[in-house]
Amino acid sequence: MARIVQKFGGTSVADLDRINAVARRVAQTAADGDEVVVVVSAMAGVTDEMVERASTINSLHDAREYDVVVSTGEQVTSGLLALALQHLGVTARSWLGWQIPIRTDGVHGRARILAVETDELEARLARGEVAVVAGFQGLGPDRRVTTLGRGGSDTSAVALAAALKAERCDIFTDVDGIFTTDPRIVARAHKLDRITYEEMLEMASVGAKVLQTRAVGLAMTEGVRLRVLSSFGDGPGTLVVDEDEIVEKQHVSGIAYSRDEAKITLIRVADRPGVAADIFGPLADADINVDMIVQNVSADGKATDLTFTVTESDLDRAILVLGEHKKALGYADLVSDANVVKVSVIGVGMRSHAGVAQCMFRALAEKGINIQVISTSEIKVSVLIAEEYTELAVRSLHAAYGLDAA
Amino acid sequence: MARIVQKFGGTSVADLDRINAVARRVAQTAADGDEVVVVVSAMAGVTDEMVERASTINSLHDAREYDVVVSTGEQVTSGLLALALQHLGVTARSWLGWQIPIRTDGVHGRARILAVETDELEARLARGEVAVVAGFQGLGPDRRVTTLGRGGSDTSAVALAAALKAERCDIFTDVDGIFTTDPRIVARAHKLDRITYEEMLEMASVGAKVLQTRAVGLAMTEGVRLRVLSSFGDGPGTLVVDEDEIVEKQHVSGIAYSRDEAKITLIRVADRPGVAADIFGPLADADINVDMIVQNVSADGKATDLTFTVTESDLDRAILVLGEHKKALGYADLVSDANVVKVSVIGVGMRSHAGVAQCMFRALAEKGINIQVISTSEIKVSVLIAEEYTELAVRSLHAAYGLDAA
Repeated sequence: MARIVQKFGGTSVADLDRINAVARRVAQTAADGDEVVVVVSAMAGVTDEMVERASTINSLHDAREYDVVVSTGEQVTSGLLALALQHLGVTARSWLGWQIPIRTDGVHGRARILAVETDELEARLARGEVAVVAGFQGLGPDRRVTTLGRGGSDTSAVALAAALKAERCDIFTDVDGIFTTDPRIVARAHKLDRITYEEMLEMASVGAKVLQTRAVGLAMTEGVRLRVLSSFGDGPGTLVVDEDEIVEKQHVSGIAYSRDEAKITLIRVADRPGVAADIFGPLADADINVDMIVQNVSADGKATDLTFTVTESDLDRAILVLGEHKKALGYADLVSDANVVKVSVIGVGMRSHAGVAQCMFRALAEKGINIQVISTSEIKVSVLIAEEYTELAVRSLHAAYGLDAA
Repeated sequence: MARIVQKFGGTSVADLDRINAVARRVAQTAADGDEVVVVVSAMAGVTDEMVERASTINSLHDAREYDVVVSTGEQVTSGLLALALQHLGVTARSWLGWQIPIRTDGVHGRARILAVETDELEARLARGEVAVVAGFQGLGPDRRVTTLGRGGSDTSAVALAAALKAERCDIFTDVDGIFTTDPRIVARAHKLDRITYEEMLEMASVGAKVLQTRAVGLAMTEGVRLRVLSSFGDGPGTLVVDEDEIVEKQHVSGIAYSRDEAKITLIRVADRPGVAADIFGPLADADINVDMIVQNVSADGKATDLTFTVTESDLDRAILVLGEHKKALGYADLVSDANVVKVSVIGVGMRSHAGVAQCMFRALAEKGINIQVISTSEIKVSVLIAEEYTELAVRSLHAAYGLDAA
C-alpha cells in the first residue's frame, strides 16, 4: 500500500466523459489498495473564460476579487469528480483550499503556499476515503481565497505530496511523458523513462510546457518523486527524480526550444562600471525578466553595444521603459527583433563531459545557422537564432547528440 | 443615511453589461450616503447548467458535492460585481457564505439559515465599504458549503437584512413589481404600490414567481420591509409590509393562478374514520404535498369518492404510491386529471367583507365555468377549474373585483 497524489490537468477533465474516465482511473488506484489524493484543474477553457470576464469588467482588477472569480473552475471539477467517484462506489470527498486549509501568503493572483494542514486529510485517508482537492487555490492570511498563478495546480499537487509524505506525485496530462524534444518537430523524438529535476526545470522553462517550473522546483526541494504520464493511455510516463536515481547518464537528455523570445540591442552604451545595473534596474522594477545577455567588447573604450533577450510579450513594455530612461542611459539607438528563438541542449551528463557546446556550434554551423547569442549553465547550452531555423536546428541537434530513436 | 440590502436575481446579472448596470445602481445608492449590502444570484442559466452537470455525472448525487458545484455561480457574480464597483471608484468587497459566515443546518441542497455573524460586515459598512454577498449559500455544521434551495438568494437577502437590522430589503427583478394579476393575461392588470406579507405569500405560492415563499415568510417573521422592483427601470416597485401599514384596504388585491396542478379522485373509498390519514400518510411519507381536498357525502353510508390535488410534477409518483396501497385503502378506482388550473382571489380585506367568495362563484358561473374543487382561507378563495378556462376566468375575476385599471 502506497500513498499517491494524482493530478489531472484541464484537458484531462475537459468534459463529463473525461471526468468519468478520470474517476475510473482513480477508482482503480484505490482498488489496488493505495491511498489516493486527487488534485484537479478547471475544465479546459474555463479559467481563460473567467480571466477574460474579470479583465473585461475591470482591466485593472483587484487581485482579491480576481481570485474569487477564477478559483471557481477548480471548485466545479472537484465536486463533479467526487460525484463521479461516488457513482463508482468509491468513498470520496471534495476539498477546497480554505477547507484543508492550504495556507498561502497574501499575494493574490500568484500566491505562494506556506503550509498545508493535513490532520483532517490524514484521518480521512486512513479510513479509505479518496480526497479530491481543488488545485490552484489556497487561503490567504486575510481569510480570503488566493490563487497560485497559471499552472498552479501542479504546485498544489506537489505541496500536498510533500505535506502528506506521499510516495509519488503523478501528473496526468495529454502527452505520454517528457520527450527528448518536441515530437511535432522531430518524428524520431522518444520518451524519456527518467529525467532529473534540474533537467526537467530547464525543459519546462524553455518551452516543454508539461510541468510548471515552480512545481518542479518545489518537488526538488522537498524530494517529491514526480511522474508525468498521459491520462488517455496506460504508459508508464516519465519519472522525475534525483540525479543519483539515474543509472545511465546521457551527456544530453533533450533539445528544448522557446519561441517566446525577443532580442533588444542597445547601440553605443557608455562603457563604464555600473551601466548594466542602470539598464536592468528599471526593467526589473517593471517586472520584466531579462534572460540572455551579451556585451560586445568595446572598440574605442568609450561605448559598446549591449544585447539581451526578454519574453516576446514583454517586448513592447521593455522598449517603453528603456525609452523613458534613454537620457540617463545615454545609448545612441535601440534595435529589437521578435523573430528569434532560443534552442537549448540539456543534460546533467554534460557536467562531466567536455565538448557538448562545441558539438552544438558545429552542428548549427554545418546547416549555415548563425548564432546570435549564447548562454550556458552547468546542465544547459542555449543559443539564440533566427526563428525561421527553429525546426532545422532542433532536428539537427537531436541527431547530432544521438537522440534519434533507433 | 439608511442601511439597505439590495438583491439582484439571475436576469439582472445575466451578462457583463448588466452587471455593470447593477454596479451603477449600487454606486448611486452608496453615493446617496446609504450603507449597502448587495446579494447576488448566479448569472442566468449558470445554476441550471451546474445542476445538469451534477445530475448527469451522478443522478443520485451526494448533496454535499452538489452544493460544491452549484454554489460556484453566485461566487463568480459576487467577484465580478465587486470588480465592477471598484471600477466605478466604489470600495467594495465580495463575501462568500463561509466567509461571513452565514451558518446553516446540514441539510445540503436546501439548508436553512440558523445565524448570520455580522461583526465583520458591520465594521466594513461603518467605514463605507459595500459588501457584495454571494446569495444562495452558507456554511454547514460540517464546515462544508451548503445551498439554500432554488431561489435561495431571496432568503439570503432577507436573512442579512434581518441580522443587520436594515431599513429595507430591495429585491430587484425583471418585473416592475407585484401586479393585480399576470399582465400577459390581463392587459389592464396594474402594479400594486403595497401588499401585505400574507397576500404576497399567497401570490408567490400560486404562481406569481417573483419572490420565494420562504423569503417572504422570513421577512414577515423578522419584520423586514421588502420592496420588489425592476432592475431595468426606475419605478418605485411594490412594498411588502405589515397590514397596519396599508391605509386603504381593497377587498381583493389580486388574482393568482397556478397551472402546476393535478387532480386525483379515488372512487368508492370506505367511509370510515381514519381513512383520510390512511390515504394521505403514504403520500406525505413520499414527500408529496396534497393541497385542495374534497370528500363527497356518502350516498349509502359505506363508501364515498375522495378528490384532492397535487402538483403536476408529483402526479405520477402519487398514482404509484396510491397503487401500492390500493388493497389497504380499498378504493374501487383512481381517476386523474392534469388539465386543471387553480385560480385564487387574494386580499386581506376579505376578512372583514362577506360576499367575496359569492362574487367569485357568480362571475365564473356567468361564463359557464364549472368549479371542480373549492378551498378557502382567511385571505384567499381558490377554485380548481379546467385548464382551458384559465385566461377567461382570470380576466373575468379581475373585472368582477374592480381591479381593471382605469
